[in-house]
Amino acid sequence: MKNTHLPSALHVMEGVEQPDSVSPYLKTKKIARKPHLSADEYLQGILAGNRVILSQAITLIESVNPKHHELAQQVIEKALPYSGNSLRVGITGVPGVGKSTFIEALGKQLTTKGHHLAVLAIDPSSERSKGSILGDKTRMEDLAVDPNAFIRPSPSGLTLGGVARKTRETIILCEAAGFDVIFVETVGVGQSETVVKTMVDFFLLLMLAGAGDELQGIKRGIMEMADALIITKADGDNIIAAQHARSLYLSALRLFPQMESGWSVPVNVCSSVTKLGVDQVWEIIKEYEKSTKENQYFYHQRTEQLIRIFYDWIDHTLKENFYHHPVVKEHIEKLIPEIKSGKITPYQAGGLVLQIYQSSNL
Amino acid sequence: MKNTHLPSALHVMEGVEQPDSVSPYLKTKKIARKPHLSADEYLQGILAGNRVILSQAITLIESVNPKHHELAQQVIEKALPYSGNSLRVGITGVPGVGKSTFIEALGKQLTTKGHHLAVLAIDPSSERSKGSILGDKTRMEDLAVDPNAFIRPSPSGLTLGGVARKTRETIILCEAAGFDVIFVETVGVGQSETVVKTMVDFFLLLMLAGAGDELQGIKRGIMEMADALIITKADGDNIIAAQHARSLYLSALRLFPQMESGWSVPVNVCSSVTKLGVDQVWEIIKEYEKSTKENQYFYHQRTEQLIRIFYDWIDHTLKENFYHHPVVKEHIEKLIPEIKSGKITPYQAGGLVLQIYQSSNL
Repeated sequence: MKNTHLPSALHVMEGVEQPDSVSPYLKTKKIARKPHLSADEYLQGILAGNRVILSQAITLIESVNPKHHELAQQVIEKALPYSGNSLRVGITGVPGVGKSTFIEALGKQLTTKGHHLAVLAIDPSSERSKGSILGDKTRMEDLAVDPNAFIRPSPSGLTLGGVARKTRETIILCEAAGFDVIFVETVGVGQSETVVKTMVDFFLLLMLAGAGDELQGIKRGIMEMADALIITKADGDNIIAAQHARSLYLSALRLFPQMESGWSVPVNVCSSVTKLGVDQVWEIIKEYEKSTKENQYFYHQRTEQLIRIFYDWIDHTLKENFYHHPVVKEHIEKLIPEIKSGKITPYQAGGLVLQIYQSSNL
Repeated sequence: MKNTHLPSALHVMEGVEQPDSVSPYLKTKKIARKPHLSADEYLQGILAGNRVILSQAITLIESVNPKHHELAQQVIEKALPYSGNSLRVGITGVPGVGKSTFIEALGKQLTTKGHHLAVLAIDPSSERSKGSILGDKTRMEDLAVDPNAFIRPSPSGLTLGGVARKTRETIILCEAAGFDVIFVETVGVGQSETVVKTMVDFFLLLMLAGAGDELQGIKRGIMEMADALIITKADGDNIIAAQHARSLYLSALRLFPQMESGWSVPVNVCSSVTKLGVDQVWEIIKEYEKSTKENQYFYHQRTEQLIRIFYDWIDHTLKENFYHHPVVKEHIEKLIPEIKSGKITPYQAGGLVLQIYQSSNL
């Protein structure tokens, strides 16, 4: 494998060709595919709960091929009126906290109760290896074969913004397909939590007993976003440590400002092995739903998330239109060698391309 | 403090007013300031090594007030020809690895040798508290008062992309001010490493002995980007564990693909307390510089980074022009209530604004 050594995630927009920065990986993704269904065929399949068609529609949404964008957009628009009827739960925690086993334990309880659960992941993949830390879903052995569960790993090869947009759209499709609980999991160490927070109703932070905040790499900002803290692995010799951690975090949370939702953040312990406390996590989430629907915050948050989608769509489309413009493509190709040879600064070159783009729209 | 509960980092572009998503924090940043110097006065001050003017120029670059952008851009353009004459070193590692003490130990050795060192930080601050994990520079007590060192925390209130752009520009100013070594530190847990990698010559990963990869929250992708791995805290009882970790990582690295730079990634141990191995880290960096200048990779990487700046500048300016357009502002204000009330989908509303923007440019 060739090591390009310069991560290109920031500037490789999915489906936006930038002559000098498209990684070989993205290019290989543009393989020939089977002819697509029509938008209505996708919609009918999704509404009928057909998982093969749901998966194909998600793949269409994730496609980096610009030719697929219009169809994908149509499918999303058509599915939108059928979406919204789920509880969307973000789940985060550092690697090692036992996220997969927790999701499996809670997920199995939900599907046993008759819920339909979709598990999505947000994990911008590593630039060089393109490997996704959450890509390996084989650990969720029971859920993976559960007819009431649908597991979809993070789309690969995209920027965080790209992954976020695709995941928002995937939520719409999953809801239209009848999933009434959506888990969006992410690794609790960076910006992806902020992004997940913008697309879920409830945000769950899993913590380990014993390890200090520092060791866990959990930022204060992530703790502040959580609607509940759950100390995992509260079994065997670890129960006392977990209870101790619970007291500590409860005290710490008292120092945090009141949440706009009016919700008091609970701290619980749980074990995915003995199932201790797993049921209670769901009770907490349902209690939150009830309380925030009563005080309208639930709807307020969803509305704000629509505004987020609005800005996000504009930002993306603005760039897409620009980089697909033939005059822009042509000039970028000409200017890049001049930037490289130092004949022009990147700022001057950028100004030039923008100027040309604007006047070509006259 | 009011908890807005919806992180707005993704869509609050610095200096770009989006009627419904500008956080109160950003608004308070637009305080009245003293009259600014001219671009030439800034440049002269920077070239003379005047730290007060350098700091003011960086503050100008970081300003979210659109009125400051043109002047900031002029200062950067003017400083650009005087930049480039430094070794740019990225330093990362999870919280707890001892980054600050390491930077202090290595930094003091460099300034003692007569180097001029600038330490910058990349750490997108938490949305709710606006606190920066790296903001507390009081730990670098010696460097903070060292006349040959300049420490600048991460700009706050910006997105990762915003922080990255400002830091690239700050590097230019620091180099023009005569700093010949630039450290860019970041917390080794997320996307910010990918960003730092795009602006430095050498990327150093600090690791703890004993803790597994999982516990350290270090992703494979970050390890793959490193030009050297340094096991910290190799003192006292920890020396043997550090040596053991060194062997482990050396074996692990053998499985990684060859780097495009042709460089073999060394793994060393070091102690910021006993200073064991601190000198060698600098020798490694100098050896890397020599080797990659010989095979031209050093220059190749810098050139590629210019292309990155080019795309980054375009992406940012495209959005800025759009959101500052009076017709756009007006229509966004009108459409947001309609999105909220469900009269129009965010996608339809986005399409409408883009259409209006394009036709208003006719």
